[in-house]
Amino acid sequence: MLRDSRWENVLESAARLFSAQGFAATSVRQVAEGADITKAGLYYHIREKEDLLLSICEHSISQILEGARAALAAAEDDPVAGLSALIGVHTDFFRARPENLIVLSRERDRLSAGPRRRIARLEHAYLDLIRGVIAEGQRQGVLKAVDPTVAAFLLLSMLNGLDAWYRPDGKVTPDQLVRQIEAIYFTGLGAAGTEAPRRRRQPRRAR
Amino acid sequence: MLRDSRWENVLESAARLFSAQGFAATSVRQVAEGADITKAGLYYHIREKEDLLLSICEHSISQILEGARAALAAAEDDPVAGLSALIGVHTDFFRARPENLIVLSRERDRLSAGPRRRIARLEHAYLDLIRGVIAEGQRQGVLKAVDPTVAAFLLLSMLNGLDAWYRPDGKVTPDQLVRQIEAIYFTGLGAAGTEAPRRRRQPRRAR
Repeated sequence: MLRDSRWENVLESAARLFSAQGFAATSVRQVAEGADITKAGLYYHIREKEDLLLSICEHSISQILEGARAALAAAEDDPVAGLSALIGVHTDFFRARPENLIVLSRERDRLSAGPRRRIARLEHAYLDLIRGVIAEGQRQGVLKAVDPTVAAFLLLSMLNGLDAWYRPDGKVTPDQLVRQIEAIYFTGLGAAGTEAPRRRRQPRRAR
Repeated sequence: MLRDSRWENVLESAARLFSAQGFAATSVRQVAEGADITKAGLYYHIREKEDLLLSICEHSISQILEGARAALAAAEDDPVAGLSALIGVHTDFFRARPENLIVLSRERDRLSAGPRRRIARLEHAYLDLIRGVIAEGQRQGVLKAVDPTVAAFLLLSMLNGLDAWYRPDGKVTPDQLVRQIEAIYFTGLGAAGTEAPRRRRQPRRAR
């Protein structure tokens, strides 16, 4: 019991430091100090610094994956409701553990090959889940026929990009945020009747 | 002339290493080796390693900002065409310099306070540009009344997230990618008549 809460403190300290300074620039000593234990005490829990990074990444993606699976099961056969619930799960995790998500998205490539693959497998499972719901929505005719992989990654990018700008205590409340993400993702930024432009004469090659 | 192309090599070497290993884990010696010059030769161009990071970040955001301004000017008073051209500019830069964009988005927080502010000012100018077009589209009634800041950041997240998944030589061509981003951003993933869900009984609090 005591040990669990100490381990929690260690992971929180590591997530705080890795997200602020990066994994490479953080020492095990700093993590120990942040968790208020000795360096020797910290080495009781880990073999090396990388174990901390792996734990944070694994915890983050596992929690989101598990939440997403439950949300999709609850939404049963409604892909739009399912995706919407999944947006909620991901943003809820971001609110609860912003530093963990920052570490997952910016520092996971610092993992060595084996641990990196473990995280990649979980991320792939999450991606597959999202792609599956999108494909199901397309089969039901409620979602547009864009590439499900592209659509899934664009959603993931919006969710994983939150740390760069969103502050839950700012003027946009978390509920408003979720509603605005849904509005844009499902119905687009265009007013009713506005179409994605086709007519440009390649202006984006101009430069 | 000779010096310019050597400096270009240095920045390319630095961007390659910083994006692959992170700024903190990369030594000046490695950057010099990657650019095929001596460490002393490299110090002819810089005072310290941070100068390389600043140059890469500044170049990336300046190029995008300049391209975006030109694209918007070319689109004149059509906000949808303007945003669409801006999506093209950003994805073109990503295709040309993926490593620079990775460094900008993942490593800029490694900059010390002064340089970080310089980059933040440029990023803010880019954000303001996007928000301005969105607000203009809302005034004209062609864009939906969501918070322009949220809408701008969601677009930026989709664009800055490309490095995590998109490969220009994969099955989705760059032109298809731009069209799919536009389709989702302007008209949403929902098929015609699909609405963003309102009806759920808070499933996303379930976990």
